[in-house]
Amino acid sequence: MRRSQRIAVITKLLVENPYKIYSLTDFAKMLGAAKSTLSEDLAVIRETFADMGLGKIETITGAAGGARYLPKLSNAALLARVEKICEKLEDPTRILAGGFIYLNDFASDPNLVSEIGEMFAAHFAAVEPEYVVTVETSGIPIALMTAHYLNIPMVVVRRVSQISEGSVLTVNYVSGSSHRIQTMSLARRALPVGSRVLLVDDFMRAGGTLRGLMELMTEFESEVVGMGVLIEMELASPKLVQDYVSFINLHQIDPVNQVVKAAPASWIQNSAD
Amino acid sequence: MRRSQRIAVITKLLVENPYKIYSLTDFAKMLGAAKSTLSEDLAVIRETFADMGLGKIETITGAAGGARYLPKLSNAALLARVEKICEKLEDPTRILAGGFIYLNDFASDPNLVSEIGEMFAAHFAAVEPEYVVTVETSGIPIALMTAHYLNIPMVVVRRVSQISEGSVLTVNYVSGSSHRIQTMSLARRALPVGSRVLLVDDFMRAGGTLRGLMELMTEFESEVVGMGVLIEMELASPKLVQDYVSFINLHQIDPVNQVVKAAPASWIQNSAD
Repeated sequence: MRRSQRIAVITKLLVENPYKIYSLTDFAKMLGAAKSTLSEDLAVIRETFADMGLGKIETITGAAGGARYLPKLSNAALLARVEKICEKLEDPTRILAGGFIYLNDFASDPNLVSEIGEMFAAHFAAVEPEYVVTVETSGIPIALMTAHYLNIPMVVVRRVSQISEGSVLTVNYVSGSSHRIQTMSLARRALPVGSRVLLVDDFMRAGGTLRGLMELMTEFESEVVGMGVLIEMELASPKLVQDYVSFINLHQIDPVNQVVKAAPASWIQNSAD
Repeated sequence: MRRSQRIAVITKLLVENPYKIYSLTDFAKMLGAAKSTLSEDLAVIRETFADMGLGKIETITGAAGGARYLPKLSNAALLARVEKICEKLEDPTRILAGGFIYLNDFASDPNLVSEIGEMFAAHFAAVEPEYVVTVETSGIPIALMTAHYLNIPMVVVRRVSQISEGSVLTVNYVSGSSHRIQTMSLARRALPVGSRVLLVDDFMRAGGTLRGLMELMTEFESEVVGMGVLIEMELASPKLVQDYVSFINLHQIDPVNQVVKAAPASWIQNSAD
């Protein structure tokens, strides 16, 4: 096998499985090449990805040497992605009766969800979560892709517990916007006690859902190391949570004049300067 | 840029976006190389992937020439994946009170879900679906990854319709195993009339859910071109649907002797011979 052929194989494996460590021994078996040769192959991929802003190839040296692919986004690339989503959001046909906004198509587009998951993973990798936790239903696609890019499991909290979950822990919480009492529950075996968790959701009004998730995590004696939401409704008054990161601010939904206004969160705008 | 560097970039883009066509013009702009050179690069990737059983690179010749990556699995690779899942399924700690079985961890593991989505996509690509349709909650991860590998949108049917969906179509159906009347609904704007849809779910007992989805698709004047379930409960008597494809048969859940028995579907065992 020539270098260009080996690089095609190695690139595919690394990119398809972010954060997964492949040892030089794995590659050597698969490709029938010496480890020194494979180290050179990895250096080519690493430098090319770095030059093109395509993410980071982290190489581990020594006897147990190997490599893994870490998704990275430049500030400019992140801003461009978020601006593209804002443009989609500002489509006035999204406005529904009662000033609600239709968002289901975001979770439908696997390419978009994949880009969002990569954004979340790149942002929260530093806090080293062990689980991505979301609540059914609309946050699941983003949570799954975030988990994919971090190579950790995703846990879905249920609004209605299922018969096929075994023993579950349930908490009640108050929805911040409608002030209704709601329930969420999670199977005991779904999350080990003492885990480091990243809470993820697609949309946040006052933050009642995140508040409920935080309380549930306390019951699991687990630590919330990060909270991320794609879209935050800025108009929704007093927030019930702090220390969350939102990527998009939804400023205005005006059903009379058929106007939706959304903008990248200020931390993204500032960091891209 | 050298050939090996261009191949690292091209492989990453193609593999990250299955079924998406990249034109030689796209690559030429990005990599500053002549189209004839890029055609040679693509040929190297295509032949290497074919030799290693890593999927198909389809090249489109002519002025609008380009390439795309199509996930493929050999029969032996499919059987190996399905056997690995069966082994996980046969873990007796999955057995819950009442003879139910815990399956949530399947949807939690992004690598496993990705492999399952690739299996579904490889199997159903030939019927050319335009949408992957599932019903909340547990089928969503598999449906999303199937949609990712086919580069088409995913549509999630709700059991309880949401205020933020606009006008919805609702059908009632009878659950095949519990004989209870249930409801499912889908926003009108979520699926265009006249679509070709692939129905996907993680688990099937008698098939009541698939039956309900079929009826809902009729209301949307859409054609069901395929139905796939990961795990079929073989014991569940008369099936309410035909023409579905299951990948795994769950033969036995014995809470007394703590035994679960699962096997690859016979069509997979036969084709791998």
